[in-house]
Amino acid sequence: MRFVSFYDRDGKETFGIFAKTEHKILNLPAAERALTETVRLPQTLLAWLNDPGRSEAYILGLYENAVFHHQADFWYHPETSLLAPIPRPQKNVLCIGKNYKDHAIEMGSEADIPEAPVVFTKAPGSVTGAGSAIELNSAVTEQLDYEGELAVVIGEEVKDVSVHEAENSVFGYTIINDITARDRQSRHKQFFLGKSGDTFCPMGPSIVTKDAMAQYLPAKIRTTVNGELRQDGTTEDLIFSVPELIAEISKGMTLSPGDIIATGTPMGVGKAMNPPRFLQDEDEVSVEIPGIGTLTNVIKQKA
Amino acid sequence: MRFVSFYDRDGKETFGIFAKTEHKILNLPAAERALTETVRLPQTLLAWLNDPGRSEAYILGLYENAVFHHQADFWYHPETSLLAPIPRPQKNVLCIGKNYKDHAIEMGSEADIPEAPVVFTKAPGSVTGAGSAIELNSAVTEQLDYEGELAVVIGEEVKDVSVHEAENSVFGYTIINDITARDRQSRHKQFFLGKSGDTFCPMGPSIVTKDAMAQYLPAKIRTTVNGELRQDGTTEDLIFSVPELIAEISKGMTLSPGDIIATGTPMGVGKAMNPPRFLQDEDEVSVEIPGIGTLTNVIKQKA
Repeated sequence: MRFVSFYDRDGKETFGIFAKTEHKILNLPAAERALTETVRLPQTLLAWLNDPGRSEAYILGLYENAVFHHQADFWYHPETSLLAPIPRPQKNVLCIGKNYKDHAIEMGSEADIPEAPVVFTKAPGSVTGAGSAIELNSAVTEQLDYEGELAVVIGEEVKDVSVHEAENSVFGYTIINDITARDRQSRHKQFFLGKSGDTFCPMGPSIVTKDAMAQYLPAKIRTTVNGELRQDGTTEDLIFSVPELIAEISKGMTLSPGDIIATGTPMGVGKAMNPPRFLQDEDEVSVEIPGIGTLTNVIKQKA
Repeated sequence: MRFVSFYDRDGKETFGIFAKTEHKILNLPAAERALTETVRLPQTLLAWLNDPGRSEAYILGLYENAVFHHQADFWYHPETSLLAPIPRPQKNVLCIGKNYKDHAIEMGSEADIPEAPVVFTKAPGSVTGAGSAIELNSAVTEQLDYEGELAVVIGEEVKDVSVHEAENSVFGYTIINDITARDRQSRHKQFFLGKSGDTFCPMGPSIVTKDAMAQYLPAKIRTTVNGELRQDGTTEDLIFSVPELIAEISKGMTLSPGDIIATGTPMGVGKAMNPPRFLQDEDEVSVEIPGIGTLTNVIKQKA
């Protein structure tokens, strides 16, 4: 299943799944209200992920029931402007630095290939959805850059988990564009400030469940700027795999349903080009991962 | 006023203020229910900070009315075990690295004195209250260390604010002990993992409002381990002042009511001693800042 979040016709955040044909989106809470007697679904995807009684089978049942109904109030066009699947995470988005060898080298040298996962965070307020604008404020940065990444969404609370058991805690996968102000990233030493500007974390368009994603793994990641291919990587090249990352991060630290780990970016960022090419006003950046979709955003210069 | 959070007699998180004599704590939502006709207060301090209509004058009015009543349901003993004033922040706690010259030097050399604020974060799940245990898991770290710090609590949404205007966004001040696994901090390059273990962010005991704190600024920070004085600093020595930090962090990034910025630690951490002295099972660590109180926690080895 491919989960999405969006505003319903009353302007309220809600969540749904893509129909198998992809031509429409089912508003799950609306379908439940119309089709069943009891209300079991919370209003948002994040709340559902945190519901201990959540059931994918129940959602599949709603879907199979809903396909025979044509009520406008629960079927939405896919042109619906989507929110990020988790528009406001409950903690900062976790990110892995230099998790592809070629990218570590393009940012420095062989010496930059890490021996242990490099973990930093992006503020929850940086999250934005597919189709929304990325803010470029020249007073803050002159070196705005993209980083297309596969991100893991946690589905079960986990702490001190082994590599072997780690995958059980995965709910699914999404795309993150880890937008970075390179000048701010290097000036402030720790990565946080350069990574956390408002709109610096486009996420989406969907979260694909682990079982549905299996056939697309290792994931192919392609990033384009105005249609020009910049990154063309595969998660086969990750230095630290998804289970290794979860095991390392969960040492002494609880991960919770709805937590997000962006697994790092392959080579091909703008800063590493010769000469460097940073994002400019009106540039269109797309990150595509088959199975999840395409995450497209346009840069908007702040007036 | 000195705000605190705690569990009420029904085990529900609530908030209150210290009476002027300090011999008791007023449960504000309980007092409001008993003394007024309309309910204006939300249930938690974080929710109140995010209430656009919040009024300190209203709370003072409740307090002045409550002192003439002795209902057990709204007066609590100060021995009440307090929660962190914000037990579950809405985003990671912001922290400043190497913001005292002497501490930057003790961790390396003059070359480590930063030219721009070094900003990293601690996971919300690391927050714990005064009196609670700090978890030492030898499988995760053999180098647990303390860092006593003055922390600022934001009271108004702010973005791209000038140094001159920044202080208007401050609600008040609290204490944070920025517990750090030094081996994990250096092994993973970025500070996040070494800073974010569960219980690694003791906070409290109270949040003191800006006006009440004024007479105690610059703040004196004293950290003791089993009664032995380890840190004895003053915020007079901050490299980047509170307004400078808020202005820098808010460049392109929205700060919201309830956000917390730990301003950095003075010299005297365990790692910098010769030989280094890390925290051990049963050690008692206290951070005292006059005006706010004393934040005491005991290290507990994980079985």
